Amino acid sequence: MTSAPSSSAYEELRTLFSRLSRFDHLSAIGGWDMQTMMPPGGSKARSAALAELSVLKHQILTAAKTGSLLEQALQESLSDIDRANLQEMRRQYDNAVLVPESLVEAKSLAGARCEHAWRAQRPANDWQGFSDNLREVVKLTREEAQIRAQAAGISRYDALLNLYEPGMSSHDLDRIFGDLKTWLPDLLQKVVAKQANEPCLIPQGPFDLEKQRQLGLSVMKLLGFNFDGGRVDVSVHPFCGGVPEDVRITTRYNQNEFLTALLGIVHETGHARYEQNLPREWLGQPVALARSTAIHESQSLLFEMQLARGSDFLKILRPLVTAQFGEQAALEEGNFIRLNQRVKPGLIRVDADEVSYPAHVILRYEIEQALVEGEIEVEDIPALWNEKMHHYLGLDTVGNYRNGCMQDIHWTDGAFGYFPTYTLGAMYAAQLFQHARKALPNLSDEIAAGDLSHLFHWLQQNIWHHGSRYSTNTLIANATGETLNPRYFRQHLENRYL
Amino acid sequence: MTSAPSSSAYEELRTLFSRLSRFDHLSAIGGWDMQTMMPPGGSKARSAALAELSVLKHQILTAAKTGSLLEQALQESLSDIDRANLQEMRRQYDNAVLVPESLVEAKSLAGARCEHAWRAQRPANDWQGFSDNLREVVKLTREEAQIRAQAAGISRYDALLNLYEPGMSSHDLDRIFGDLKTWLPDLLQKVVAKQANEPCLIPQGPFDLEKQRQLGLSVMKLLGFNFDGGRVDVSVHPFCGGVPEDVRITTRYNQNEFLTALLGIVHETGHARYEQNLPREWLGQPVALARSTAIHESQSLLFEMQLARGSDFLKILRPLVTAQFGEQAALEEGNFIRLNQRVKPGLIRVDADEVSYPAHVILRYEIEQALVEGEIEVEDIPALWNEKMHHYLGLDTVGNYRNGCMQDIHWTDGAFGYFPTYTLGAMYAAQLFQHARKALPNLSDEIAAGDLSHLFHWLQQNIWHHGSRYSTNTLIANATGETLNPRYFRQHLENRYL
Repeated sequence: MTSAPSSSAYEELRTLFSRLSRFDHLSAIGGWDMQTMMPPGGSKARSAALAELSVLKHQILTAAKTGSLLEQALQESLSDIDRANLQEMRRQYDNAVLVPESLVEAKSLAGARCEHAWRAQRPANDWQGFSDNLREVVKLTREEAQIRAQAAGISRYDALLNLYEPGMSSHDLDRIFGDLKTWLPDLLQKVVAKQANEPCLIPQGPFDLEKQRQLGLSVMKLLGFNFDGGRVDVSVHPFCGGVPEDVRITTRYNQNEFLTALLGIVHETGHARYEQNLPREWLGQPVALARSTAIHESQSLLFEMQLARGSDFLKILRPLVTAQFGEQAALEEGNFIRLNQRVKPGLIRVDADEVSYPAHVILRYEIEQALVEGEIEVEDIPALWNEKMHHYLGLDTVGNYRNGCMQDIHWTDGAFGYFPTYTLGAMYAAQLFQHARKALPNLSDEIAAGDLSHLFHWLQQNIWHHGSRYSTNTLIANATGETLNPRYFRQHLENRYL
Repeated sequence: MTSAPSSSAYEELRTLFSRLSRFDHLSAIGGWDMQTMMPPGGSKARSAALAELSVLKHQILTAAKTGSLLEQALQESLSDIDRANLQEMRRQYDNAVLVPESLVEAKSLAGARCEHAWRAQRPANDWQGFSDNLREVVKLTREEAQIRAQAAGISRYDALLNLYEPGMSSHDLDRIFGDLKTWLPDLLQKVVAKQANEPCLIPQGPFDLEKQRQLGLSVMKLLGFNFDGGRVDVSVHPFCGGVPEDVRITTRYNQNEFLTALLGIVHETGHARYEQNLPREWLGQPVALARSTAIHESQSLLFEMQLARGSDFLKILRPLVTAQFGEQAALEEGNFIRLNQRVKPGLIRVDADEVSYPAHVILRYEIEQALVEGEIEVEDIPALWNEKMHHYLGLDTVGNYRNGCMQDIHWTDGAFGYFPTYTLGAMYAAQLFQHARKALPNLSDEIAAGDLSHLFHWLQQNIWHHGSRYSTNTLIANATGETLNPRYFRQHLENRYL
């Protein structure tokens, strides 16, 4: 990998983006600290400090100088990877420069206000209060979407979707989710009926928190987490943060139930290994960033759903669990596997199994798309939510806003266009894992023997070390021989659950 | 407290310094994280990120615009406190603008190189290797001192001293330390002779680390630490960091000995309470910063030496200790007090008791002053060190560089002019505590009853909430009726130890 001669416009851009990435570093650590370490009294000063840094980064990125350097660099002779890097610089610039600062600020404030109130309104089931704030968020989101849509010549919703998933469109989503809707509700019913005949014991706690922590560390070690460049802590909402050189994952422990925290750690470790294995020699440049939200989620779901909830892995996970908590009937092999593959439609997305999860996503996608496009208003959400929950999952949410349309943080923050990436991630995960199996004929035996080295090498070669060098379609086609094909996801669910 | 009308130059400066303080916030948290949480692999990226932010802050502070605003603001009609704030702005600007960026960077690099190598050279007792690096640090320090001295019309050493202790001069230090030298060695000998006849048992461990942590928390609570705006963690070198809204103190635990960590927590809590009680309504402005290094140290030493090692406090500290570790002979009241008031001259400054500590400081002051003024060279340090250790403490350090002139991090980093503030802090602490006693006639009984509220209120009124509003001399004179008077320190030592 060679670089353009220095003193070129491109070289100036490299310096500029490298500087921006150093500020991103401090935002990431300041944000991580806020969720994991900061006492409540530090909140106001921290928010102000992080906002100040955001303004600075926005100013540097959108300066006229940046725009003209980007124009000049287009004329320069660059290697393929430098050109890919330039394209990612351009994408960041375009995304940032389009929307006037006043709108960015107004939306950020409305989102913060909505979220702050939501923390009390959700437990109080206060839809009326919440919808007043949400209306303002939606209004500003539509304005933003309109500006982006006009510039890109695409629909308003697609313009937002592209912030998370460059190259994806609602046209594609309609096709992908349309297909899912034809078979998923039926599959779900069959799985539930089948599992009704399979007794499943629940492990009896309490499960000591320090032992849970040790268990989590042993699983992270097994999954190749690099502790020299990362750590695990506790936060209310688990996440993967930090920077590629120092990845910070979090979990939360519950004394009565250890599996949620444990599989949560597996999930975040999937995100973490992607970050830890982004191309080292390019760190600080846009081309070294993870490809997209869906590809990121594909790595966490490959770890959690494809790998860790599979029987091969569960057989090696089980002894790690009993080493901490001792034996009990619910932890015997057969029951332990059933426990981790249980399917039970419920109201809450984040608690959903992988069979019912797509229904939660499709429901949200359909509502948020109509909302952004102006086909429905905030008032219409609860009825639509209820109708779709009935249709996809057979559940009633009338009057239950708290565990219905008020359960997620995404809309309160104005993150419309994000939800589809969860299910796209699940589909990419299934496709990648299937092709890894094909490329590594002994994978099943290797996993059962606790040897994940070939799997990780395959992911490293095919996904991790490419960063943002290729488009999502090219990345996936290079890795699997075809672009997104939802049939792998369907096959996976049918194989595991029927 | 009212402020100048907006749109004035002063008002622009307020906005600018407020912005700088938000960047300082992120530097402080990034720095804290580096010492407490960061895995080793994150070091390079973090250093680069923090350096980038330092460059940015330096650019903003030293911009021509800042200089001209400072000139304009001088002409504006300002309240007293706004004028004090403007003066502190000016001081920051002058200190930053004087030294060319190239010299700042060269010194920072030489210091980092010297410190990095020192971490291995000190355990290896490698004076030759260390002195090669130190020579470069000294050379650049002299250049910096020369520039500052010329601008301020003071000596080179005084110019550095003023960075830590505005208004202090080597003329004053020579007088203060000169007096100390007439009575301290003699006092030290007497105390050692006296204590030789007083048996003192050493507590037998191991002392569980979690219990030590709980003990530390209970003492911080007793000392009024605000946990809503701060926390305590572990680091190799204990410090007080963070920001006034979120103060981060650290300690380090040793299973075999708990008193060092415990009194260390008391010391850092003194720093922390000062920070937590700086004037809230002015946070973000230079006038709300702590007055000086010596005044900061006066608060930590007031907590540790004046308060916590006094018999009244030790009587209430003891039950907190035995609640964690149970009773043993060494923890009986008389022995517990003797243990915390033991005097034993040793080679290591940071392990020194309060009687021998000033000798360590005077020794360093005399050497660093001569070094900065060009009267001696790096090669001369070991012989001078040995001569002075003999003279002041009766100890030999020939050939023992590791525990002699290579023991501290200050010179390796280029922080010449810092050492005197430790002993100035001890003297201010004695003077302040003596006057608090006079103002609060029942203080001794209150302390013995665990009621520290009046003492803290007195400190809040007299020191903490003034920030940098007054010069050190005015602050101390307002609080105690006179400027620094070393006789309180002598009285304190004689009362406690003879």
